Amino acid sequence: MSLCGGIDLGGTKIQAVVVDEDFQVLGEARVPTPTRGGPQDVADAMADALRQAAAGHGDPIAVGVGSPGVIDEAAGVVSSARNLPGWVGSFPLAGALQHALRVPVAIGNDVNVATDAEFELGAAREFTSLLGVFWGTGVGGGIILDSKPWAGRGASGEIGHVVVEMGGARCPCGRRGCMEAYAGRGAMEIRARKLADEGRKTVLFEIMEERGRPRLTSGIWKRALDRDDDLAHELVDRALRALGAGVASAVNVLDVDAVVIGGGLGLKLGEPYAERIRVAMKPHLFASERPPAIRLAALGDLGGAIGAALLSRRLT
Amino acid sequence: MSLCGGIDLGGTKIQAVVVDEDFQVLGEARVPTPTRGGPQDVADAMADALRQAAAGHGDPIAVGVGSPGVIDEAAGVVSSARNLPGWVGSFPLAGALQHALRVPVAIGNDVNVATDAEFELGAAREFTSLLGVFWGTGVGGGIILDSKPWAGRGASGEIGHVVVEMGGARCPCGRRGCMEAYAGRGAMEIRARKLADEGRKTVLFEIMEERGRPRLTSGIWKRALDRDDDLAHELVDRALRALGAGVASAVNVLDVDAVVIGGGLGLKLGEPYAERIRVAMKPHLFASERPPAIRLAALGDLGGAIGAALLSRRLT
Repeated sequence: MSLCGGIDLGGTKIQAVVVDEDFQVLGEARVPTPTRGGPQDVADAMADALRQAAAGHGDPIAVGVGSPGVIDEAAGVVSSARNLPGWVGSFPLAGALQHALRVPVAIGNDVNVATDAEFELGAAREFTSLLGVFWGTGVGGGIILDSKPWAGRGASGEIGHVVVEMGGARCPCGRRGCMEAYAGRGAMEIRARKLADEGRKTVLFEIMEERGRPRLTSGIWKRALDRDDDLAHELVDRALRALGAGVASAVNVLDVDAVVIGGGLGLKLGEPYAERIRVAMKPHLFASERPPAIRLAALGDLGGAIGAALLSRRLT
Repeated sequence: MSLCGGIDLGGTKIQAVVVDEDFQVLGEARVPTPTRGGPQDVADAMADALRQAAAGHGDPIAVGVGSPGVIDEAAGVVSSARNLPGWVGSFPLAGALQHALRVPVAIGNDVNVATDAEFELGAAREFTSLLGVFWGTGVGGGIILDSKPWAGRGASGEIGHVVVEMGGARCPCGRRGCMEAYAGRGAMEIRARKLADEGRKTVLFEIMEERGRPRLTSGIWKRALDRDDDLAHELVDRALRALGAGVASAVNVLDVDAVVIGGGLGLKLGEPYAERIRVAMKPHLFASERPPAIRLAALGDLGGAIGAALLSRRLT
């Protein structure tokens, strides 16, 4: 049996899987993304994660990678991955991993491979067109049309930067009024800190300290909601309102069959919040009598790595 | 030589063309859309317009129609064309025209056929992906991806109903904050009337009366701008701001090569305003270092009818 490997390179963690010919996960491993050093250190950590995932299962014949930043798929080069240490320029990530692992390596955009995984193996298998919504630090989008990925000129699906409020809140990207300025976990944390500094009561930062985290993770937001924290509810409601407008706008443009909700916050908050996104979209949908199916990502946290493994098929 | 016919069915006028095998226009005719009666009266007026366009050139071997409303292309049926008299239900428009003209008739969505015409024969010939923006009474959008129309489930490209302001202005569609609530000529007129009723000075309605029109046409807006009317400038600036946000949002989702600006207001205001849309989009474009090409529709007022003629090719 020939195995394939997949690596999902995130800003805080590297998730690796080894899958069989049916893309069933045989082994998996997760390591923290290095916070210091440079691209070669990240590549070394990625190779380690894959070796751990493969241990006891045999060596994969090809490996796929889902990466942030600007991807040159043909050259295997990743540029401007700003969440990763020392990665302002370009780095030949495919070459570095091929050298370390001694197998062919393919690289794709992290959001696109995760969307592809949900389309081929996950929540959107019965559909031919799909918008993947990855609600995490930012809000990313992946597009499948007519059963094929639509990448545009390499930057399609930037649903986080759909404008939901002209002249509105400042987005971490520097622009104003983007959906992500309201719904991205990064922007939500900035606003939570500002309001807490102004004297608003919240358990968000207490939970963060209790759990020894430097940032408000998705799990911390979930715990604060479960403890009925007013500020957490207010900011999540604000995020849902922006997601409703922004995702509905994208659906009004694309008219896809289905929307799959993933990402750290999407997965952690789960089905009740997918339902709330559905409700928040409704007033803005042009063809409101036949809304798209709204599904929670079925592959969960492993979707990105499984999608990366799917990408490696083209090498085998 | 075999000729084809094309008919663009609009809310105020019916434009017909007869074209040769290279889609060069040989004859054209324009008649007012009936304001009374029902679908059969509209079909009779369409057949008349086509006969006028064909006079002296010979009979077309097939005819295409670009229509508003919900189109069943296979059945040749148009439903819910709310801008047309008595057209709340369904009407077999292709059948009625075939009966009147004695040639096969194909029907498509008006915005989609106009986009196709700009892609195949007009301003976007050198591109493989395209967003057509039709700025008129409403704001319609047509999409070409990978050199093929993308229709979604039949309602793609509804860029007029992309949300640019959560909880914002009421749109003629009943929703809030749609781009069309700011940029559609229909919404602009409603706001102009309200502000004039409240005592704002404007020449808009004087020009309307001088020219014997019941509504603020694109030409009236152009004349008021040329006469430096404050209110006209204010409302057009507001429209441009919304177009900048809404069209940039659609480009952030699709990442197309080009945007073609057409529609009554787009064509009447022309290149300087296409440039202003380009400028208004810039702060919202995610891949701002390589914006799409922004072009004014090259086929002008005849684009819709020429696109309809293109549609008839499938019948020949």
